[in-house]
Amino acid sequence: MSAAPDPVEIHDTTLRDGTQREGISLSSADKLRIAERLDALGVHVIEAGFPGSNPKDAEVFRRARDVQWKQAQLAAFGSTRRSDIHVEHDPGLRTLLEADTPACVIFGKSSAMQVQVVLRTSLDENLRMIEESVAYLRAQGRRVIYDAEHYFDAFAADEGYALETLRAAVRGGADVVVLCDTNGGSLPWQIERAVHEAARVVPVRLGIHAHDDSGCGVANSLAAVRAGARHVQGTINGYGERCGNADLCSVLPGVELKLGLRALEPGKLAELRDVSRFVAEIANLAHDPHQPYVGRSAFAHKGGTHVAAVRLSPETYQHVDPALVGNETRVVVSELSGRANVRSKAEELGLSLEGDLGRDIDREVVREIKDREAEGASFEAAEASVALMLQRRRPGYRPPFRVLAFQVITSKRDSGSSTSEATIKLEIGGAVVHTAAEGGGPVAALDAALRKALTSAHPLAAQIHLVDYKVRILDGRDGTAAVTRVLVDSTSKGVGGTRGWSTVGAAPSIVDASFAALADGYEYGLSSLEEGRLEEAQASHSSEEAAEAKREVA
Amino acid sequence: MSAAPDPVEIHDTTLRDGTQREGISLSSADKLRIAERLDALGVHVIEAGFPGSNPKDAEVFRRARDVQWKQAQLAAFGSTRRSDIHVEHDPGLRTLLEADTPACVIFGKSSAMQVQVVLRTSLDENLRMIEESVAYLRAQGRRVIYDAEHYFDAFAADEGYALETLRAAVRGGADVVVLCDTNGGSLPWQIERAVHEAARVVPVRLGIHAHDDSGCGVANSLAAVRAGARHVQGTINGYGERCGNADLCSVLPGVELKLGLRALEPGKLAELRDVSRFVAEIANLAHDPHQPYVGRSAFAHKGGTHVAAVRLSPETYQHVDPALVGNETRVVVSELSGRANVRSKAEELGLSLEGDLGRDIDREVVREIKDREAEGASFEAAEASVALMLQRRRPGYRPPFRVLAFQVITSKRDSGSSTSEATIKLEIGGAVVHTAAEGGGPVAALDAALRKALTSAHPLAAQIHLVDYKVRILDGRDGTAAVTRVLVDSTSKGVGGTRGWSTVGAAPSIVDASFAALADGYEYGLSSLEEGRLEEAQASHSSEEAAEAKREVA
Repeated sequence: MSAAPDPVEIHDTTLRDGTQREGISLSSADKLRIAERLDALGVHVIEAGFPGSNPKDAEVFRRARDVQWKQAQLAAFGSTRRSDIHVEHDPGLRTLLEADTPACVIFGKSSAMQVQVVLRTSLDENLRMIEESVAYLRAQGRRVIYDAEHYFDAFAADEGYALETLRAAVRGGADVVVLCDTNGGSLPWQIERAVHEAARVVPVRLGIHAHDDSGCGVANSLAAVRAGARHVQGTINGYGERCGNADLCSVLPGVELKLGLRALEPGKLAELRDVSRFVAEIANLAHDPHQPYVGRSAFAHKGGTHVAAVRLSPETYQHVDPALVGNETRVVVSELSGRANVRSKAEELGLSLEGDLGRDIDREVVREIKDREAEGASFEAAEASVALMLQRRRPGYRPPFRVLAFQVITSKRDSGSSTSEATIKLEIGGAVVHTAAEGGGPVAALDAALRKALTSAHPLAAQIHLVDYKVRILDGRDGTAAVTRVLVDSTSKGVGGTRGWSTVGAAPSIVDASFAALADGYEYGLSSLEEGRLEEAQASHSSEEAAEAKREVA
Repeated sequence: MSAAPDPVEIHDTTLRDGTQREGISLSSADKLRIAERLDALGVHVIEAGFPGSNPKDAEVFRRARDVQWKQAQLAAFGSTRRSDIHVEHDPGLRTLLEADTPACVIFGKSSAMQVQVVLRTSLDENLRMIEESVAYLRAQGRRVIYDAEHYFDAFAADEGYALETLRAAVRGGADVVVLCDTNGGSLPWQIERAVHEAARVVPVRLGIHAHDDSGCGVANSLAAVRAGARHVQGTINGYGERCGNADLCSVLPGVELKLGLRALEPGKLAELRDVSRFVAEIANLAHDPHQPYVGRSAFAHKGGTHVAAVRLSPETYQHVDPALVGNETRVVVSELSGRANVRSKAEELGLSLEGDLGRDIDREVVREIKDREAEGASFEAAEASVALMLQRRRPGYRPPFRVLAFQVITSKRDSGSSTSEATIKLEIGGAVVHTAAEGGGPVAALDAALRKALTSAHPLAAQIHLVDYKVRILDGRDGTAAVTRVLVDSTSKGVGGTRGWSTVGAAPSIVDASFAALADGYEYGLSSLEEGRLEEAQASHSSEEAAEAKREVA
C-alpha cells in the first residue's frame, strides 16, 4: 500500500450527482442545509450544482455566497467548451463562472468512441476543448478539478488516447485530474492499473469518481486511493443515478480505518452516522438499516452464538469499533450512552439538568425517546421535540396551552381547489379558547386556527411561523397499520433575528401526526420566547436558512 | 486473471445466512418456494437451513426430500463437533445428519484468538475437531463443504495457524474448503493474497464466503474467484446479518460478464432480475430500485445528455446489456424528456400511437407532462398517470367516472385519535352517485368513499386497492405557495394474479393532491380491467412487488 502521508481530499457531489437519483428532489434551502452539514463534517470540496443544466442551482450558489464556510471549498459543475467555439464565447463556461465559486469542476471526454459518437467532433478538437477550457477557468482565478469522464472504459479501449486527454488537462493547468468510472462497470484491479498508468503522466493531484453499477463502487474508490489517488468523489449514502455513486459513508471509514490515511480532522469520522441520517431525512428517503458502517443494523447481532461471542469480545464479530463512525453495537441497549446523549443534548439546548432530579429526568427522557421511536417518530432532525421532553419535566414548568379538541372540514365542488376550515378548542391559563380559521389544506387551516387561538393570551405566537413540513409514510410492521411521520420546521422573527427549530409527530393519521408536530412547534417556540431563551438556544437551523424560507403548508 | 475453464460453483445461503437479516422471517413453505426457484435458476448448492439452531428447518429438510430437484444439491449447515467429545456423540453433527441432505456445510474456527476466547479450548483440539468432524460426515456419505470461519482475519493475525486449520479440513477429506470473511471487513487485495496462499495447501475446490460490512462484499467475492476460488457463497439480494452477505445478484453477473467464467447454464442469467424480485416478494421486503444489475433504476436514465447518448449508443452510459440479466433500459419521463421518450413509454405500456393522430397525441402529452411537472407533479415513478394522458386522448375513450364534489371532516376530542368521514358525489354513465364512508385519516376516508361509490356501477372497483402512499412537500418557488406531491400505488387482485400501477397528484392542498392521485389510480385500474388490458399492460410494478405491499394509508 502506497500510504503517502498527505491527506486524502474528500469531494462530495451529493448535491449534484446525487440528485440524479430517481425520485430525489432537493429545494435550494435543502441543498444549503446539507452543504452546511458537510462543511461542519470537514468535507474539503462541496460540488453544489450544475448551473448550466439546472436553473434552480443558480439560486443555491447565490445564497451560498452569504454563508461563512468553515473549511469547505464550494464548486460548480459544468463541461468543457463546445466544439468549434471560442472558449470565451461558450455559454456553459460563462454560466459556470457566474456561479462565482472558488472551484470549478469540468468534465471532458476521455474516450475516442464517445468523442465520435456523442460529441461528433475530431479527437484533436476534443484535446483542445479540454486544454483550453481548463486554462480559461484557471485564468479566471478558479481552482480547476478536471473530471475525465469514462476514463477507465476509455483506457481499456485505447490507453494512448485516454492518457492524451489527461495530458491536455495538465497542460491547461488543472489542479486535480479525476478519473471517472462513469458507467460503474470496472473492477478494483482494473482501476488500480489504470490509476498507476495515469500517475505517470499526471504530476498534479489524482482523483477517483466511481459508480456502483457492478456493486464495486466502494472497493473501486479504495483501490484508486491505494494506487495513489488523493482526491475521492462520492455522495452521502451513495445517492446517484442508476445504482448510485460510491458511498462516502463507506469510503471515508475505508480510507481512514482500513487504509490508514487521513481524510477528515481527528474525531470527525464519529459524526458520520449522524450526517448519513441527516441527509436521508432532508432528502426524505428512508435510511438503509443495512448500510455498511452507518446503518442501524450494521453492528446489530441476531444469531445466538454471535451475540454471546460479541459480549465476550466485540472484535469476534465486528470488523471495526462502531463508535469510530458514531454507530453502536445493538446487542445490549446501552442505557448509559443513551443518557449521556440526552445530557449533551440538554447542554446543546441550553437546559440545565443538575443534581438528582437531572439524573431522573434524563433516564425518563431516554425511555420516552425509545418508546416514541418504536411508535414511528424519529428525533434525528427534531431537536425541539427532545428539548420539550426535557422542559416538561423541569419543576415549575407550565405548558403555554393544552389542546381540548379540534375539527377540520375540507370540501371541494366541481373542478376548483378544495377549501379547508378548522375549529380548535384550547385551554390557556385556565380559560377555554374556541376559535376557527381557514387554510388551503387541513394542516394549514389547523395551523392558522392554532396561531389565532394562541395569540390572544400569548402575543408572541404571532411571531411564530411554520416554514417547512415533511411527511413520511412508514411501513406497517408486524401486522400494525402504517404510521405517518411529520417533521415541522418553525421560525420566529424577533428583535434578535430569525431563529428556527424542528419538531416531529407520528401517528396513524396524517392529521394527528401533523397536529402533534405543530403543537410541539408552538409550545417550544412560545416557552422559549417567553423565557427569553430562544436567542441562546442552539436551534436546529441557522438564521440564514430560516430567514428566507417562506412556505405555505398543505 | 487466472481464468480456469471449470465452472464456478454457486452456493446460495439465502435460506440460512440470509435469514439472519434483521426483520426477515421465512416459513418452511416460503423456504421451499425459494429453493425451487433457485434450483430452476441453476444454482449448484442450496444451503437450506441450520437444523441445530432452528427447529423449523427440520421441517424444511423433511419436505425437501419429496421435491424433484433439477440440479441443485441441498445442504444443511452446522459446526464442527464440540471440544472433548467423541465425534459420534456430538448432538450437533447428529442433527446435521438427520437432515438427510446430499451435502453438509460445517464451519470451524481458523483463528487462534477465536479458539481461545470463544471455544475456550486448545489450538490442537480445534484442529482435531475440524479433521474428525469432516471425516465423520464424509464417512456417512455426505459431500462436505468446510467453512473456514474468520479465515481472512485469522490469516492476517497468524498465517501459520490459519493455514493449519485448512490442512486439517483437507486431511479430513473436505470436498470444498470455503474461506470466510465472517466479519466482512477485508478488502479485495487482502482477499486475493490470502486466497493465493490457501491455494498452496488446499488441493481441492476452494470457495469464498464474503460479507458486506466494508461495502466490498461483491468485490471481495470476485477478487477471490480471480485468485482461483471456484465456489462462491452468497445470498439473493445480499440479505444477511448486519450489512448482509455478498449479493449473488451482483456476483453472478460479475463472474460471467466481467470475469468471463461460466457459472449458470447459458441464458439462465437472464432470469436474475425475476429471481431477485421473487425472493424479495416471498421475504416481504421492498425490492431495492438501485440494486446493481437487477434494480428497477439500474439502467434508468434521467439526465438529458445521458438519455440522448444512450439512444445513440447504449454502451455510452451502460456497462453491460441489461437484457443479459433480464433487466431493461428505462428512460425516466420528466420535464427534460421529449416526444421520443413518450413514444417509447407508450410502447412499454402497450398503447399504440400510429399515424398523424399519434404525432399530435405525443406532442400534447409532452406538453401536459411539462405543464404538470412545472406545477409540482413528477412522473418518474407514476407511469399510470402518463398512460392516462395517452389514453384520454384516444378516440372513443370514455372515462369510467367524473368527480362532482367531495368533503372530508376530521375531528378529535381530548387525547384520543381523530376520526375522518368523507362524502363524495360522482357522475357515472349519466347518473349521480352520492355516498359517504369513514377512515383513520382524511385520505383513507376518501379512498373508502370513492371505492364505495364506484362499486355499484363498476364491480371491478372492489378488486382495486391502495397499497402505498407517499407524500412530498415541495418548496414554493417564485413566491407561489408550496405544493404537495402525492404518489399512490394501487393494485388489482384478479384471475391473472396481482398487478400494480402508480399515479401522481400535485396541488397546494394535500387532500386535493391525494384525491387526484387516487382518482387517477381508480380510472387507470378500471379502464384497464374493463378493457382486459391490465394483464398485458406493462404496469409499473411486477406482481412480486405489488404482492408484498400491504399498507394502510394515513
